[in-house]
Parts: sequence; structure tokens; C-alpha cells
Amino acid sequence: MKLTMKSIIICMAFFLINNALEAKDLNRYLEMKWELGYATARETIPDKWIPSTVPGAVQLDIAKAEKYAPYYYAEHWKDYLWMEDNYYSYRSTFKKPELSLNEKLIFISKGIDYQFEIYINGEKIFAQEGMFTAVNLDLTEKLKESNILVVKIFPAPKLHSKPADRTQASHSVKPAVSYGWDWHPRLLPLGIWDDTYLEIQPTSFVNDIHVNYQLNNDLSKADISLEVNGSDLKGNHYQWSLKDKTGVVVAKSEGNIESNDFKSAAALDNPNLWWPHDNGEPYLYNSEFQLIDSFGKILQTNTTKIGFRRVKLVMNSGAWSEPEGFPKTRSVPPIQFEINGRKIFCKGSNWVNPEIFPGIMTRERYKQLLTLAKEANFNILRVWGGGIVNKESFFELCDEMGILVWQEFPLACNNYPDDNQYLQILKQEASSIINRVKKHPSLAFWCGGNELFNNWSSMTDQSLALRMLNSLCLELDPSTPFIPTSPIMGMAHGHYVFREWSTKEEVFQEMARSKFTAYTEFGMPAPSSVEILKTIIPKEELWPPKPGTSWESHHAYNAWVGNTWLCEDIIEDYFGKSDSLEQLVANGQLLQGEGYKCIFEEARRQKPYCAMAINWCYSEPWPTAANNSIVSYPNIPKPGYYAVKNACRPVLASAKLPKFKWTEGETFYADLWMLNDFHKDMPAGKVTIKIASEATTITILDWDYMPMSANINQAGPTVRYKLPAFKSDRFRILLEVEGHPEYNSEYTLAYQPRTLKGKRFTPIMNQ
Amino acid sequence: MKLTMKSIIICMAFFLINNALEAKDLNRYLEMKWELGYATARETIPDKWIPSTVPGAVQLDIAKAEKYAPYYYAEHWKDYLWMEDNYYSYRSTFKKPELSLNEKLIFISKGIDYQFEIYINGEKIFAQEGMFTAVNLDLTEKLKESNILVVKIFPAPKLHSKPADRTQASHSVKPAVSYGWDWHPRLLPLGIWDDTYLEIQPTSFVNDIHVNYQLNNDLSKADISLEVNGSDLKGNHYQWSLKDKTGVVVAKSEGNIESNDFKSAAALDNPNLWWPHDNGEPYLYNSEFQLIDSFGKILQTNTTKIGFRRVKLVMNSGAWSEPEGFPKTRSVPPIQFEINGRKIFCKGSNWVNPEIFPGIMTRERYKQLLTLAKEANFNILRVWGGGIVNKESFFELCDEMGILVWQEFPLACNNYPDDNQYLQILKQEASSIINRVKKHPSLAFWCGGNELFNNWSSMTDQSLALRMLNSLCLELDPSTPFIPTSPIMGMAHGHYVFREWSTKEEVFQEMARSKFTAYTEFGMPAPSSVEILKTIIPKEELWPPKPGTSWESHHAYNAWVGNTWLCEDIIEDYFGKSDSLEQLVANGQLLQGEGYKCIFEEARRQKPYCAMAINWCYSEPWPTAANNSIVSYPNIPKPGYYAVKNACRPVLASAKLPKFKWTEGETFYADLWMLNDFHKDMPAGKVTIKIASEATTITILDWDYMPMSANINQAGPTVRYKLPAFKSDRFRILLEVEGHPEYNSEYTLAYQPRTLKGKRFTPIMNQ
Repeated sequence: MKLTMKSIIICMAFFLINNALEAKDLNRYLEMKWELGYATARETIPDKWIPSTVPGAVQLDIAKAEKYAPYYYAEHWKDYLWMEDNYYSYRSTFKKPELSLNEKLIFISKGIDYQFEIYINGEKIFAQEGMFTAVNLDLTEKLKESNILVVKIFPAPKLHSKPADRTQASHSVKPAVSYGWDWHPRLLPLGIWDDTYLEIQPTSFVNDIHVNYQLNNDLSKADISLEVNGSDLKGNHYQWSLKDKTGVVVAKSEGNIESNDFKSAAALDNPNLWWPHDNGEPYLYNSEFQLIDSFGKILQTNTTKIGFRRVKLVMNSGAWSEPEGFPKTRSVPPIQFEINGRKIFCKGSNWVNPEIFPGIMTRERYKQLLTLAKEANFNILRVWGGGIVNKESFFELCDEMGILVWQEFPLACNNYPDDNQYLQILKQEASSIINRVKKHPSLAFWCGGNELFNNWSSMTDQSLALRMLNSLCLELDPSTPFIPTSPIMGMAHGHYVFREWSTKEEVFQEMARSKFTAYTEFGMPAPSSVEILKTIIPKEELWPPKPGTSWESHHAYNAWVGNTWLCEDIIEDYFGKSDSLEQLVANGQLLQGEGYKCIFEEARRQKPYCAMAINWCYSEPWPTAANNSIVSYPNIPKPGYYAVKNACRPVLASAKLPKFKWTEGETFYADLWMLNDFHKDMPAGKVTIKIASEATTITILDWDYMPMSANINQAGPTVRYKLPAFKSDRFRILLEVEGHPEYNSEYTLAYQPRTLKGKRFTPIMNQ
Repeated sequence: MKLTMKSIIICMAFFLINNALEAKDLNRYLEMKWELGYATARETIPDKWIPSTVPGAVQLDIAKAEKYAPYYYAEHWKDYLWMEDNYYSYRSTFKKPELSLNEKLIFISKGIDYQFEIYINGEKIFAQEGMFTAVNLDLTEKLKESNILVVKIFPAPKLHSKPADRTQASHSVKPAVSYGWDWHPRLLPLGIWDDTYLEIQPTSFVNDIHVNYQLNNDLSKADISLEVNGSDLKGNHYQWSLKDKTGVVVAKSEGNIESNDFKSAAALDNPNLWWPHDNGEPYLYNSEFQLIDSFGKILQTNTTKIGFRRVKLVMNSGAWSEPEGFPKTRSVPPIQFEINGRKIFCKGSNWVNPEIFPGIMTRERYKQLLTLAKEANFNILRVWGGGIVNKESFFELCDEMGILVWQEFPLACNNYPDDNQYLQILKQEASSIINRVKKHPSLAFWCGGNELFNNWSSMTDQSLALRMLNSLCLELDPSTPFIPTSPIMGMAHGHYVFREWSTKEEVFQEMARSKFTAYTEFGMPAPSSVEILKTIIPKEELWPPKPGTSWESHHAYNAWVGNTWLCEDIIEDYFGKSDSLEQLVANGQLLQGEGYKCIFEEARRQKPYCAMAINWCYSEPWPTAANNSIVSYPNIPKPGYYAVKNACRPVLASAKLPKFKWTEGETFYADLWMLNDFHKDMPAGKVTIKIASEATTITILDWDYMPMSANINQAGPTVRYKLPAFKSDRFRILLEVEGHPEYNSEYTLAYQPRTLKGKRFTPIMNQ
């Protein structure tokens, strides 16, 4: 693994300034004020300028200046659509700063979305297509006393004008989600979306520092190599040190610098390893590099965090014995994640853009969402290829919190072409992404993008874009695994419903017949809570929900196949027609939770052949009316979040349920399990199984489970019980673990008394 | 596609000399005489020198000088085993040639097997591991009046001393087959194995010429670009021309040379395309490049052939609609070969080394084997990764004869490691292979190696060697497809028997239940003909065959799983105990032919989902006693060859048979088909189906088939007939096509009269 400190330099230096500490470095930062203008033609100079917030998005500046209603309310997002086709000019005026002979002025932007040109005092000095490659321009020679810097943004890229959907993005590296998805309105962010500023740098300056390391086989030693690249470095001196978290220096290196590219080596015995939070401590070391001139003055200080770990994708248990017999095809590719020699079961969620306009994402917002993810017992997030590659603070927080990141490139559900121009931009963007992200210990593996090898995308293993991404990852980050897309063979995506619309198969039967190496997308829709619905749907549309209203704009209807995502029909089949919004929402949210528990727990029962359970999706970029997410916009857990959190506990008692709805007098049955992802052995114990409905609670079985070996599940008995008469339309199964209430589980099921007759749906039961 | 002329230069120049034509070039060749010595230790100087034939192998020199019995007779191959562990020195003494100031003396070897050092007059000047990277050394400065050039060869690479099998080759780029296979004795070639000579070159010399081209979408225009690299080129002039096969210049370019690397462009409208022989003409143009000095003297002439074609692997028909439902994994990868926009069904064979010591392979030997392959209606050869990458003449002949080449890298059935040293050598060797072979229009696609994703190899998509090969192919030859191994998902290898040893399933039932995108290995064993057996097995061992004799050494017994490859038990079950060698051989060869016909024809019936049928294997590197090959060593077709040839005809009548053995009175049945791979529409016709045994011939059905669209099969009726009493143990099914005897087919089946009782095996019938 290679670590680059380039992007850390700035944050650290900002930190020094912001905290009013003594600045040891000679580099200084100039804040910029920005204005925004727009025009319909490329050459037109805007005649009106409005204040602009950077980073942000042109849409947000216009909405603020021109007093647009918020895009998340009712159908106001449609008012913003015209903005995707304009030319935008960001303008910043600044005075020439005092520069000594040994200083230069650099314009830096971490991200400009999407195609743009940069002008200084009317002269074009730069052009780029691509939002993930930082801009770094030396302005020194161009400066006048007063200067105008302009960033001109082109209209959003579109392959064709119709259909106005994600296929418009299939020849660009702009994330496809913005063109509209089944939980995302069509809104195409444009503008400066990441940190952007002027920096005074000494002429002797280090641009890149890669701290590479190689762990030996038994992980007892790290051989560290420092690779430094900069300008005007000769004659200076450097000091590098690695400190553990108590501040003790555990490795160091120093010397005189002879050239602008140099290397240095060090070693660390018995490094504390970085672990995902549920398997150990996500231990981070501090690396500090100082550039010192011949007079002993510190010219530059670069600090970064380093976590030592080894990541691999290894063969899933049992997968080598498939296929059997002849004619024989290949065995499935590996998707068992191994860290530091330990195979772990990955539990997590699909991360989508938390904002429609990623420019306004902050460290604080990332932290709120990631804290909830960690509390949900997630050890991995799949950063889905339809969205952006997150800002640095996302990765820094994942490093600190011990959350693995499966990082996709910005390709999703399109047929990205074998086209030289596209490939060139993809190469530029992917290289920038790899070089930025590879230093993070939380990086689990790279992935080419989403569902590219299915017929709605129609890319194949021969697609040059994917062969190139594989090749770039190998070149720039050889020790991190790469998969071309998700799913690869043996993995599965879906289903996204509690009950299939045509076969009426429930999630319980679907999962029981499935056998996959990893479930890396599966969804359970639920309406948002009533309080959220009231903030997005006008009062007069609220009840009853109807297609063609704000409900549909917020994805309750016609979002995906069938009556997604509100599913009133299914809810009605199980519990009767809803009498109120509150009742509809409560029952819809109940199905989400029970459905998600079923999949997470069944995937865990299929361990070790199965190695991952990652639901679709985690949060959402605006408040939806109904969606598969478990966290409502911006950071509000749905009830389903808590169901998932429970299903992902390291240890729990679990029941494998054959169906959702039961009838009075029918023999209920379920297989009992102790699910165990904990990395140490566990003692024996006792589970009491109860059946309950309103005031009634009946104990139906005690199971004494055996001591549990680390990371190995235990199958128990099948419980059977003839269902008594209950007065409710539902009952609960309680699994209580003696002395360990933290292992307890509970399931709610639908119930039909004998006296209740009629045409209600009875789910198919696969026995 | 890029074309390099480097390796062609020499052949062409040799041709000029050999034919005593006027040599226009200034480069001249000096023949070398070689002697061989050997020692057990690296530093020991051999005390004895024997004559050596270059190219060749040290084993062949020793065998000749020391009068060894031929390795192919009886078990004499064991006498050669000691030779794999020695150090060998090739020695050549030569006088310094007259060199003008504008000349240099270069030592060139196209291939030295496997690890070696080169010394001139006692001084080490070069070392290399790897047999596929040519050596090119400027000796000029090292020359004395009399010179001794020594090539010192190291012992064959071995990862470990035991087990002495292919796993010894798992950390090297030496072909694994030599370490022993189920049809190849353990014999490890060492030595100079390809053309090797001294060349006087002008100091102004072109080393590499790449003639790249890009075809436009409708193939109506080729944009050609010339990339030239050499030394001391400035001030010279070049002329390049492209001639069609009538000698007419169709494109040209000339100019003064300004630097040692230069480019030039040309264009060709409506190029005649290169096609595989069964789809059109394998049209080749002649490219001629001349380097001319300022006095108008021709310094160098390089000629090569160029074929214009576009190759792709595209999705198999119907494969995008799989898998159905959710949870959903990916669709299978594409293995439908498309050339010049036309999808073709690939029919062919697995090519293994035609000699145990590839150094003695000649253009003439290649030509004999390739002519037979073309006559067998093969349009593709899979050059299996267990063997070598063939010499240039192989590819030149495939170009000329219109035979596609699926070229694998030298990895097979091993777990090649993520090890820096191995990866470095693989990179060097693979780069050399790609740069040499990519110019050939016959190159269909690259493949990482054989069966690497099955448990006997245990490599995965994460293996760095395969990611690197993908990456190198993309970099050096981006327009040629790459697959990591065979089989990839959806493709199949096997079975290799007429009847499975445990399930007793016959090839007829096995193929009927199979559905794969390509069958790229499947075998049918047969004994060699009696005349061949007599040349390898001592008279006293000939009858009856027994394990532990030369029969076993020649793979009749214990070669693979079970009683392979002689299969007396199966032959006995169908036809009773064999009374003579002749009878055993005839019945074994019958089963091979009928089994191969079944697979080739059923794979063709599964078109268009299925896109390839490639049997294991074509020829063999020494005379075997029994084997899956259809051509005995060296170039002798088995009866099975003719069965395969018939099954691969572009158009034929075909019967889908449910089983091999039938009983008197039983109702015989078979599905009738017209198989059609021809690329033009065909008229309607009539097939008459007859059943025959000895003197009896009965017509049982006439089928009027409809006109056939190009490249599309036609399913016909199912024929049914109650089997009469025959006097033979076999009968034949005849399909006769009116007016087109070239479409006729014939199948032989086993027959059991009612009167014959006993414990004979009756095959399972899947109805």
C-alpha cells in the first residue's frame, strides 16, 4: 500500500491556522470570495452576478439569490431543471499578495464539477473535464496588482437529449445518479464542489509524499519506504518520524536532500494493526514529514495518519468444491474479505450520496452518518458507483472509526464505451481517485462500478474501461483487491421487495432457496415517518397517498418495477386496508424491519460460504416518501435501522422463519440458531423461545446451546407449536438468552384468526 | 492491431541468401558451429565437448553423441531423466569478420531454454531467465581475432524436488507440460531452441517497425500508422509501400528521417479483409520498408505480411437474458467470437507441443499439421498454456491458411504466485510474446492460461499474475480480446471419456443435459493404430496390454482418473472381450470417432448460445499407446480425425442420438438436424434416413428440409423405428442428402440381439 500525504498537507495547515496555533510553515492561505454569473451561450459574459458559496453548487447559489422554494418540498425540484444546461462563471477578485523571491502563489481546487476552464485576468490558463482531479495552478507569473480569476463551468454532459435519464451520462465520468434514479430526483449538480483557495508556497516545496509499507507474512514487521517528490528541494534537509498514538516515536529517518525525487527507508517491528471496529482497534499512527532549509528553518510540515493492515479477497469456504462433475466450468471468484489474516463476515450498507449537491457535505455530516453506521454494527460500506467518490473527511473518519470502504468508480447501470475520448477522461479521473484514496487503511477493495455485467448495462469483461480500471489499480495500488463490478459471478443483487409482485414469493422463501457468496444489494421499502412526510408533501396531498402527486415525485409510486416503494397493496394483504397515514406508515415500516432481519440473518446463517450482507441502501440524498433506505434524510433512523442493527450484532439468537402470515391452529415452526461473528470463543448458554401476542406470552422451548468457537455459527433445534387463538392481527416470537439480554431477538409476524374470513391474501408457504 | 516486423527481417534476409538472390541489404549473416559440454556444478568447466545441433536441445545432442536408445521406444525416456539437473555450455568459436566503420556484429538468438548466461572470450556479458525473450547482443567492442562465445544453461527450474510433477514449474515461465502430463512423459527440454546466429548490421539500422491500423466502423477504410525505431537513422531516407497480392502498390509513404523514432501515416480504402478460411479468403498484403542512405544505397529491407481484420468477443446469443429473477448474479462473460462484424462458430482443437523438444520443430512440420487441421474444417486452434508459444513459422502459416489462433500464456494447472521475482520474469516473457505475436491477423485472442480458476490450480481473479497479463495485453495489444483462463464462467472443459467411470453416463446423455457457452476441451480416448504401437512397445509386451509395461509409460494406464486412456473395460462392455490387439484398437478407435462426433455435433446444435467446440487434443508430442489426440505422432491421422472432420463440415445432416447401445426390438429414435455454419443462404433439400447392418439397409424416413438462412441450423423431425433382428454386434444410421453427398452423415451404434444374454453392461438411457 502506498500513502500519499499530498491532500493532507492542506487540512493540517488549515487546522493550524484555524486554531490560531503558531504557524511553523512558510505556506499561507488566502481566502477567496466568489460571485456567480450565468449565460446560455459559451461566449456570453454574464450581466448579473450573485453571491456564491464555495464549495457548493450553482443551483444552491441561484436558489438562495433568487428565492426558489426548497427543491425537496412538493415538486419544486422541477423548478431547478433549467439550470443543468447553462454556462456558469465563478468570479473571484483578489489583490496580489506580497511574495518574497522564494515564494509562489498557487490556485488549488480539490474538485470542480464537471467540465470547466480557468481564466486569470481574461487569459485562459487551464481546461479540464472531470470533477475528481484536483486543480493546482501556479499563478505567480500571471499576477497583476488586482486580479480576476474566473472558473467557467460548462453545461452538464449529456450523450443525447432524450431519453432524459442516466443513459445521458454513459460517455462521461459524471456520477449517473444525478440524472434521476428510483430514489433520487433528476438534479444535476454543477460548480465548485470541494475545497478551493489560494496558497502561498515556498519555492522549495514537497508536492507528494508516499509512505509505502510492506508487511511480512506473519504481520510482525512493516518495511516502510518513503517516496518524496517536489520542486527546488536540493540543498534542503528532511526529517520524518512515525509516532504511535501515545506520541512515542517508533520509526524515523532524516537526511540531506540531493534531488527533487528521493526515497528513504525505515522499519517497524510488531506494528499495532488497524482493524475494523468489530474485530479490534482501528489503530492509527501519526506520520510527520518536515522540510528544513539550510538555515534550519522549517519550510513545510506534512502530517498524515497511517494504519498498517493487509487486505485480501480469498476464496469463499466451500466454493472450490464447485462445480461438480463434467463438463466443468470455473469456480466462482472470491469475495470473502480477509484482513490481517482473519476472514470476516462483512455486514453493512450501500452508501449513496448523502446530499443531492455533494458540495455541501461536511465532515460533521459525514460524522453523524458514519457514527450511526458504526452503531448499527456495520463493518463495511459499499460506496456505490452511481454516486460520487466522497471527500477526504469521509475516508479519514472511516479510518478512525474502523469502517471498511468498498470503493467503486463512477460507473453505474450504463454501457460505458470503448471510446478513446471517454477512456482518456476515465483514466485521468480514476488515477486521481486511486492516488487520493489508496493511503486510507479503511479502503477494503476497488470495484469498477455497479451492475455493469447485467443486461441493463451490457458491459462485459472485454470492455476496455473495466480492463483499464483493473490495470490502473494494479499499477497504482497493487496490494488492494479489485473486482470489475458488483455482482460478480456467485454474488447477488436483490430482491428489493418484501413480497415479489408476480410470484407472490416472500423474502422468507426467497432467501431460503438462495445460495450466494455474498448478498451485496437487497432492499426492503418503507414509507418515511409521518413527521418527515409532512415536511415534503403538501397537507392536501397527504392522505390518502396517490400517484401523480408529490408522493410520486418522492418515489412512493412508479419508481421501480410495480407499485414501488409504498407497497400499500402488500401492506393491505397482510393487515387490511390502512385507516390512516399513521397506520400505513407503521405497518410499512414493520415490514421493512422484519424483511431486513430475515435477509441479514439468513445471509449470516449461510456463512462461511456466504461472506457478506450489505443492504440497499443506507441513507438518502433528500427526504423520500418511501424508499429502501434505513436512515431518512438527513440523519434520521427509520425503525428498520434498529431492526438491521439488531440483526448485525456480533452474537445473537436467531430464528429462521418460513413465512410471514400464520393462521390460528396452524403449527408454527422455525429453525433456531446462534449467530456468531465474534472473533473469540464464547461459552455455552440457554435460549428460551416464547410466543406472544398482546397480553399472552407462552414459553414453547428451552435450547441449551454449546460453547461457540470464534466466528462460527451454531444450528439449533426446530421449534414447533400449534398456534392458539390470539386477539390481534399479529404475534411475536421472542428469543431470550439467559444472562445475555444483549443476544435476545424478537420477530413480529402477521396472524389471522379462524373467525376472520374473506379474500385476504395468504402467502405461499414453501415446505 | 499493431504489426511489428522485427522478427520478419531475419527470415526474409535468410531467404535472400539461401536462394542466392542478389542481396540488396548490407546486413549479412554468419553461420555458427556449436559444441556442447556439461557439468554437474555451475563453475565446473566441461572436460568433454560433443557436436551440437542448433536449434535443438541438449538431450538430443547427448543422445546422438552417446548413442542413447530413442526416448519414445519402450521406457527409454527414463534414461534421459538425469539430464534435467546439469549445467550445459554451448560453445562456438569464430573469427572476427571484416567490419567497416559503419558496421557492427550482433549475436542474435530467438530463444534459449530456460535460464542462461552468455560469455564472450571468458567475459560474462548477459544473463536471462526465460525462453521467450530473444537475445540481441552487440559484440563489436568485445571482438578479438579469434573468439569463443559460450551460452551456459542452468538446470531446469524446480520449485521443490518432490513431488516431481508440474507443481515444480509453478514459480517459473517454463511450460508445465514438460514436467509430465497424462499424455506427455517427463522430459525437460534445455538448450538453444530457436534460430541463433551472428549478424553484421549497418550502424544505421531499424530495430522495430510497427505497422498499426485502425479500421473504421463499417470496415471500409484502414488508417495505417507506421512506427519506426532504430539507431543512427538521422540523415537517411525511408520508403514504405503496401502491395496487394497482385503486386499493385495500394498505399505508400516516404521521407527523410530526422530521428531514431519516427512515425508516418497512410490510408487504405476498401481493404480486402482477412478471413478465416471457412468464411472467406485470408487475404494478406505485403508491406515493404526500405532504409536508404544519403547516397541512395539500400541499407536494409524489411518485409512482412499484413492482414486487415477486426476481432471481438461478443455476448453469446441468449446469455443476456440469464440469470432470471432475484437474487440476481451477473450474466456470463462473452465467448462468441466475431470477426469483421460476423459471428462465427469456432470449431477446432487444442494444440499441444508437436514435439517433446520444440527446438526441432520446423516450418515443414508445422505445415503438415496445420494443413491437416485446415482439412479437418477447423477454423481455430487453442494453443494450450501448458505448452510453448510456437515459433514464428507457425503463426505465418496460420495467417496464410486462415486458421485462428487462441494464444495462451505459459501458465497451466498451477498456482502461480503473487511473488515479485516470478512476476518480473512473467512480465518480461509475456511482453516479448505479445510484441512478437500481435502482428499476426490469425491471432484471435489472448488467454492467461489453462484451468487456472479450478481447484487443481486455485488461482483467482485476484491473482496478480493474471491481472498483470490482462494489463500487459491492454497496453501492448488493446484491440485483441483477453480472457484470464479457460474455462471462464459459462464455458466448459470435459468430459474426457466415452462413458463416465462412476455414473456410467455416456457422452450422449452428458451432452444432452449440458448447456454451455463454449466447449473448449473435451476428449475421447483411443488407442494408437497397431503399426504405431509396434514402434513403441516391445513385441513381448504388445498383447495383452498390461499396466506396469511400456503401455503404461505410453499413457494407456493410470494416466488420468481411472483406467485411462485405453479403456478396455468400456470396449468390453459394448463389444465383448477383445480377442486381438487389432480388434481392441479398432473398437477403441470407433468409440473415439462416435464420441467426438456426438460432442461436436451437439455443440453445434446448441448454437447460437454455444459458440465453440474445440476438442482435447489435436496431435501429440510422441507416439502414445492411447490418448485423446486425433493425430498420432508425428502427423498420422487416427480414424477419429476423419469423424471429427466430418462433424465439422460447414453443412451436414446430423442425428442427435440418445445412447450408444440398442437391443433387438427396442424402438430406436433420434432427432434430425441440418447443421449449418455456412455464411450464405442455402436452398431446401431432402434427407433420407436409413438403418443398416451388414447386408441389410432399410429406409425409415424422408425429411424435406426448408431453405437454410446463412449460419443458422434447422431442427427436423424425430425418427423412430423398432429395431429388427441383425446378425452383427453393431448397426449404422445413414443420413443421405439428395444431390449433396458432401452433407451425408453416418453413425455406428452397438447392437445386442435378444438371443444374446449375460451380464454385459447396458448403458443407462436418459428418457
